[in-house]
Amino acid sequence: MKRYKRSDDISYALGITLTFELLINRPDQARRVYVHSDFERGETFDKLSSLCSANKVEIVFSDKPFNILSQKENCYVIGEFSKKYMALDKNASHIVLNNPSNAGNLGTIMRSAAGFGIVNLAIIRPAADPFDPKTVRSSMGSIFRLNIEEFDSFDEYMGKAGQRNIYPFMLKAKKKLNETEFVKPFSLVFGNEATGLDDSFLSVGTSVIIAHSDRIDSLNLPIAASIAMYEATKSSDF
Amino acid sequence: MKRYKRSDDISYALGITLTFELLINRPDQARRVYVHSDFERGETFDKLSSLCSANKVEIVFSDKPFNILSQKENCYVIGEFSKKYMALDKNASHIVLNNPSNAGNLGTIMRSAAGFGIVNLAIIRPAADPFDPKTVRSSMGSIFRLNIEEFDSFDEYMGKAGQRNIYPFMLKAKKKLNETEFVKPFSLVFGNEATGLDDSFLSVGTSVIIAHSDRIDSLNLPIAASIAMYEATKSSDF
Repeated sequence: MKRYKRSDDISYALGITLTFELLINRPDQARRVYVHSDFERGETFDKLSSLCSANKVEIVFSDKPFNILSQKENCYVIGEFSKKYMALDKNASHIVLNNPSNAGNLGTIMRSAAGFGIVNLAIIRPAADPFDPKTVRSSMGSIFRLNIEEFDSFDEYMGKAGQRNIYPFMLKAKKKLNETEFVKPFSLVFGNEATGLDDSFLSVGTSVIIAHSDRIDSLNLPIAASIAMYEATKSSDF
Repeated sequence: MKRYKRSDDISYALGITLTFELLINRPDQARRVYVHSDFERGETFDKLSSLCSANKVEIVFSDKPFNILSQKENCYVIGEFSKKYMALDKNASHIVLNNPSNAGNLGTIMRSAAGFGIVNLAIIRPAADPFDPKTVRSSMGSIFRLNIEEFDSFDEYMGKAGQRNIYPFMLKAKKKLNETEFVKPFSLVFGNEATGLDDSFLSVGTSVIIAHSDRIDSLNLPIAASIAMYEATKSSDF
């Protein structure tokens, strides 16, 4: 067992909460569950055991993986899983992240996307690793509820995404978010944390700005993406 | 020079961008600017020098503080500043954070607050340190554009905050965010990352929920606070 590397076929859900999300939502991807000797026997352990046995997932009792994979003190369970990309649903709305660079941000966006019911996520490379254990953690396990597909370019995405309405979010856009009507299926497109989307996106679909005061240069990426998802799904009956 | 401690009277803006925010918005709080020997002479350095001399802030050329205060590779300037709480404006709208526990989250919320023009931030103790260099960093310097005041209890806050409309954000609330009318001056109140606001807040003002699917337990705190600020300031002409 070694530290996680992006080139690995497997990754890890660190902690009991994330491991439950894995076993409940993607049992087919679960390969193995590691349990630390300090993990108390009780209801939670019983629930974990029965989920594992129902899904034929081996439980390994060993402290070693925790020393290698987890920096956190209170991590007593690790779910090892196979990474899996899934084709996006052409009829559904999408979030499209163009070159996101931060694994934590990627996870935070996944959590909001699951929250607002946009369960198809396109990632345009180069990009942070959606399966990095840090991403899994900051997604709070939402990663196991999303279809995630990577593309080499926005054009490749457009070629495969099906007929839809594109809304790139950019500071140079004219249309304000609260004056925008989102027609389904839609794609909300966001650029890199530092550089945003380049000007070529001004001529793609309807570009949108989240208006803010000039006290800041821009909103944080997961914040901007989440505000956009909130507004675009407002009519949903959650 | 030692590592930053919460009990210190001073804190640090790590990096040139944050140091500029300090010098431009709160020159009275700036005590000293450290410059690393690898920091290139040029326009940026000249701007820094003239800002420092205009505000009578000493520049110290030394690499030592960087070894102690900064883990980041690309930090060549550090602004040392006096911490300063400021009484909140009783006539303005506020953000109220009840026991926030994460310094990075606190900074992200500051950035959004500055962005949406809510420049008065109340923090109810116990809470993460608003002047932690991590908070300063994640605020992207917005901390120097806000009035920040700490209180020992929500009651103490209410006693000092002036007449206003209170909107506690909680999962048990009945009123949905997109059906809520925010009457100024308002206070948007948020609980701790893990526990939220306790039930006693259901009887305070108008409690509000940001409706989301049951795929997630809750939204991330800075995300929820930012969506609320976006919605509550929508009529503003940014």
